Amino acid sequence: MAITSLKLQKRPYLSATEDFALGKDSPRAFLERCLELMAAIEPEVMAFEATDLDGARAAADAATGRWEAGHPLSPIDGMPIGVKDIIETGDMPTGMGSPLFDGYQPRHDAASVRALREAGAAVVGKTVTTEFAATEPGKTRNPFDTTRTPGGSSSGSAAAVGSGMLSAALGTQVVGSIVRPSSYCGVYGFKPSLGAINRGGSLDILSQSVQGVLAASLEDAWGVAYAAASRCGGDPGYDGLIGSAALPSARKPKRLAMLETPGWDVAEDGAKAALLGAVETLAKAGIEIVTRKQDKDIDQMERALVEALDLTRRINAYESRWPLNVFHDQDSSKLSKAMRDRLAQSIMIKPEQHRDALRRRGMIRAQHAALADRFDACITLSATGPAPKGMLTGDPVFAVPGSMLAVPAISLPVFDIGGMPLGLQVLGFMGQDAAAVGIAGGLLNILHAPI
Amino acid sequence: MAITSLKLQKRPYLSATEDFALGKDSPRAFLERCLELMAAIEPEVMAFEATDLDGARAAADAATGRWEAGHPLSPIDGMPIGVKDIIETGDMPTGMGSPLFDGYQPRHDAASVRALREAGAAVVGKTVTTEFAATEPGKTRNPFDTTRTPGGSSSGSAAAVGSGMLSAALGTQVVGSIVRPSSYCGVYGFKPSLGAINRGGSLDILSQSVQGVLAASLEDAWGVAYAAASRCGGDPGYDGLIGSAALPSARKPKRLAMLETPGWDVAEDGAKAALLGAVETLAKAGIEIVTRKQDKDIDQMERALVEALDLTRRINAYESRWPLNVFHDQDSSKLSKAMRDRLAQSIMIKPEQHRDALRRRGMIRAQHAALADRFDACITLSATGPAPKGMLTGDPVFAVPGSMLAVPAISLPVFDIGGMPLGLQVLGFMGQDAAAVGIAGGLLNILHAPI
Repeated sequence: MAITSLKLQKRPYLSATEDFALGKDSPRAFLERCLELMAAIEPEVMAFEATDLDGARAAADAATGRWEAGHPLSPIDGMPIGVKDIIETGDMPTGMGSPLFDGYQPRHDAASVRALREAGAAVVGKTVTTEFAATEPGKTRNPFDTTRTPGGSSSGSAAAVGSGMLSAALGTQVVGSIVRPSSYCGVYGFKPSLGAINRGGSLDILSQSVQGVLAASLEDAWGVAYAAASRCGGDPGYDGLIGSAALPSARKPKRLAMLETPGWDVAEDGAKAALLGAVETLAKAGIEIVTRKQDKDIDQMERALVEALDLTRRINAYESRWPLNVFHDQDSSKLSKAMRDRLAQSIMIKPEQHRDALRRRGMIRAQHAALADRFDACITLSATGPAPKGMLTGDPVFAVPGSMLAVPAISLPVFDIGGMPLGLQVLGFMGQDAAAVGIAGGLLNILHAPI
Repeated sequence: MAITSLKLQKRPYLSATEDFALGKDSPRAFLERCLELMAAIEPEVMAFEATDLDGARAAADAATGRWEAGHPLSPIDGMPIGVKDIIETGDMPTGMGSPLFDGYQPRHDAASVRALREAGAAVVGKTVTTEFAATEPGKTRNPFDTTRTPGGSSSGSAAAVGSGMLSAALGTQVVGSIVRPSSYCGVYGFKPSLGAINRGGSLDILSQSVQGVLAASLEDAWGVAYAAASRCGGDPGYDGLIGSAALPSARKPKRLAMLETPGWDVAEDGAKAALLGAVETLAKAGIEIVTRKQDKDIDQMERALVEALDLTRRINAYESRWPLNVFHDQDSSKLSKAMRDRLAQSIMIKPEQHRDALRRRGMIRAQHAALADRFDACITLSATGPAPKGMLTGDPVFAVPGSMLAVPAISLPVFDIGGMPLGLQVLGFMGQDAAAVGIAGGLLNILHAPI
């Protein structure tokens, strides 16, 4: 049954720097409104695996005091957030979306979780993930139509934010796990550059996997990502998220590349029409938008992206050998068939084949990086259409290029396809997250998100 | 009290491919000789935190059957090995060298441990590490003179192999933690290129940290490293160890760079004389050996290496913020003063300072890589002299360049300074581990290791 009352209405928006600072709202009052909504709709949406409402209330109270005293810990002090259930928490179990981890209580908070608590965030609960953040779906349903998937693997994070139960939630993406559910649930999805947020204490070990944020606004997405990265750093050896605490200023880009990606062949007509409509609006606003038909570099990029999904799956399979092997040793009956298949595939891949795949990926990344000389960013769809019916998490074809390229990818919930949300995706350049978010803000100013 | 009976004698050597295949020895018989020695000397050496003798015997029996049937799982099938106690094991506790992890029983084997079991290795026990593989010493003593340190942080691995209780043990190095204890305990130390062996399931998260092997012979060091890496891969995104199961053929190099490193100023006279003597022997054998006095590129490299220790410490401190922060939250009284100081230092480092340090490290790595056009490898000492008296783990100044450069580093136990061992270090080039090991073999053939 659809929760029609939520459909494309304005969702709660934590304007911490404004309403909290002005004393017009408080973190505790805000949290209580979120929890009221949660009590009403969570039985249908099923976005959470575990909650700690007492802990969240205590954090919100402490933040309320700090805002009243004029000394918040960060712009997101007191923000109610969720944590994808493959990211460890010292005070709540972490189930990894697998019966193998039923009741598993980690010893400590993951790096990003500890950092967000240090910034004052109120951690409300653990959000549902697919099995080990791969394909086997969890229980969560799409808040815009509960007969549809919320997308995966950050299913609960997307549904909790999309339904207004949280301002933001941590997610992870290695194929399409932030951008796709963000699109399906009408939230702002921010998958930063590879390595931008320290993944310590998460199951999320693959070489193109990254932590990111699903949020009720672009400001919240950036604010949470920056609050985490500035306190826990990036992945070891990486620059970490570069920028400052405030949302990067919205900026109208001069020239964008419009990528079809291999998704164009399978996208729904309505989705393609929505993107082409947006392109027309942006062009009218004076932005030059270039496609593969007009430009040889873009055409060559499109040709390379044909490999993105296959290359990604092979690299992920090989790099999943451990820990899948130990899970298999422990109790293979508790792995889904998809996981057992991935393990079987991983064992067939020879080290030299894996090295070839890594080299090919590196070449495509370099090819993409060279586009930065001529384009401010790339745009494309976030998904082939609105969330499909059923529980399968949908096609990641539009999201996987950003994962493979290791670049910032932002899903903006600007399209409405028959009452269901769909995202426009902005792809920036590696390490230039603030620029990408600024451009996303500039496009939002022109396109006027309906939500 | 020194265990003088062990002094620089030939230690047990697992010639698996020969004696096991010929039926002249069996893994079970070999293991029993190791355990007999262990019963006699472990009370003094204290190399182990935990053992699983039943498990090791069962693994050795199974391997014995496979060798008899002519179908060993790998060249190291049945080899008795140890695992540094920051690497998780599903059947033995993993104490991380810290009271915070007293009795901690991981759910699974780490990637490398599972891989080595798959290759047939008999895991005898967990070897003592310094606190979180940093500087605070454990209980282990040097088997050549128990009033001296075994070095750190792979203290127990070095002492167990150096005393003949094991054929090989896993270690890790981020500053000098394989090369230095290998030198002090007279074993072969192999720190492979960054990313060569999958670190999944180990505390070892820093960006220049790597897993490697301390072994009774070069063949065993390579065999264990290859058995692990070929089954669990390298770190995600890395090529993993490149080569084949057999020890790379010994090869006499044409031209070597002799590096003084900042260690030259603090090395003992006897150590410097030993290296210069070896250089003379190698030169007589027809190898061209070039120093900073003769070559501008080497001189520039030496100048850059002055920064190695400071740069490494700053990068490690920043990247240690998590997990040290959560350990501190849990019970700061259980962290050593050195750890609390490192955490305090980490909090002072700004993200942009860390990014500058990473960039500087990258430039020095590129500068070193360019030497490959003109030199087969670099050689230097492994340590400033024999193991010092007392428990402090010694000066890492000769080992840290290889860590910072991310290159293969091999310590060969070829020097004898007043009855105490000291290593010659061979530094190869990133990703070219087999070539470096082949050159190490070539130098061994000329220098005739005393042990």
